[in-house]
Amino acid sequence: MNNKGILIVISGFSGAGKGTLMKKLLQTYDNYALSISMTTRKPREGERDGVEYFFTDKAQFEQHISEDGFIEYASYCDNYYGTPKAYVEEQLNAGKDVILEIEIQGALQVKEKFPESLLLFVTPPSAKELERRLVGRGTESEEVIRKRLSRASEESEGIEAYDYIVVNDNLEVCVEELHSLVNAARRAPIRRDEFIKEIREELKEFSKGAN
Amino acid sequence: MNNKGILIVISGFSGAGKGTLMKKLLQTYDNYALSISMTTRKPREGERDGVEYFFTDKAQFEQHISEDGFIEYASYCDNYYGTPKAYVEEQLNAGKDVILEIEIQGALQVKEKFPESLLLFVTPPSAKELERRLVGRGTESEEVIRKRLSRASEESEGIEAYDYIVVNDNLEVCVEELHSLVNAARRAPIRRDEFIKEIREELKEFSKGAN
Repeated sequence: MNNKGILIVISGFSGAGKGTLMKKLLQTYDNYALSISMTTRKPREGERDGVEYFFTDKAQFEQHISEDGFIEYASYCDNYYGTPKAYVEEQLNAGKDVILEIEIQGALQVKEKFPESLLLFVTPPSAKELERRLVGRGTESEEVIRKRLSRASEESEGIEAYDYIVVNDNLEVCVEELHSLVNAARRAPIRRDEFIKEIREELKEFSKGAN
Repeated sequence: MNNKGILIVISGFSGAGKGTLMKKLLQTYDNYALSISMTTRKPREGERDGVEYFFTDKAQFEQHISEDGFIEYASYCDNYYGTPKAYVEEQLNAGKDVILEIEIQGALQVKEKFPESLLLFVTPPSAKELERRLVGRGTESEEVIRKRLSRASEESEGIEAYDYIVVNDNLEVCVEELHSLVNAARRAPIRRDEFIKEIREELKEFSKGAN
């Protein structure tokens, strides 16, 4: 087994319960680390540099882009948001499975740069249940709910790019499922390259009777 | 979740312990069915038609080939061996996960015809351990052992075609691992096509506010 961690991308519909799931997963198992994004937006009250985000300015962010320092980045409402490569690689090398919670465009960028990354898509059991959860929040107008469902409809077109679909019906069950999918992913050849290389070399040697 | 079972192909080095693993897996869980091969070779004492093999003659086997009745087949020592499609599809439709224990050439034929099949490769923890097991049997000459290791060396070139590599170090642990890999595979988009289609259609409808 390689000692390097797995780069895990988690996406899912707004209302699928990703935030709660991540929190529970990190509380339950100690092999995970959550990636911290870098942003040019100003810190809100209570936000600490290096905890919620790495805060920086536009010039530094663009310098970082030019140095290929991001795993993925995007600009949103005149601010940059990105996943710094250095922090993620440091955690992976320390054997941590690093979770990025990002949207599909970012997920596809990650898969292209890191083919051995694991893409997970979280969904409620049905569209009806997603709507129920959005309505149940009671904080959003009918119009905003329709917009979110319309957004979800667009996002659903990209599901095939993900390695696994996880249905979040019950928090505890779903956390266990996520954890076992990560463990399954460790057995894929793309993440066992060192083992494969080693056994191939040994078999070549042994079949010559050179032991 | 689709109700159809998964077509599982298990390959591995001679000496990896596949036979014992399959037996234990089938004893432990009731979602599996073992595929029965068809052959033109004569039944040996104690072998029953429809249990160890489906026994048939050359003309019938070739008729079956011409009707595309095999998932995969090969000829070996003047006899045909093949996996009849009808039996496997019947079991899959009944919700059983059907296991084919075949070699890499057959495995690749299966993956081509059934892209949603799951290919598992069983290996001992190291080449040294494989050699130790082959020597430990005490039934084979040094020459035969070298031939088997040489065959394993060739087979190892195809490992990347498999979905997962399973290290068989401890029987009980390995059975659990196989079982959890099959369950992980149920969450891959290629095996959730009905769920994806359904949620897409619903989301499209709901985002119009048509509920």
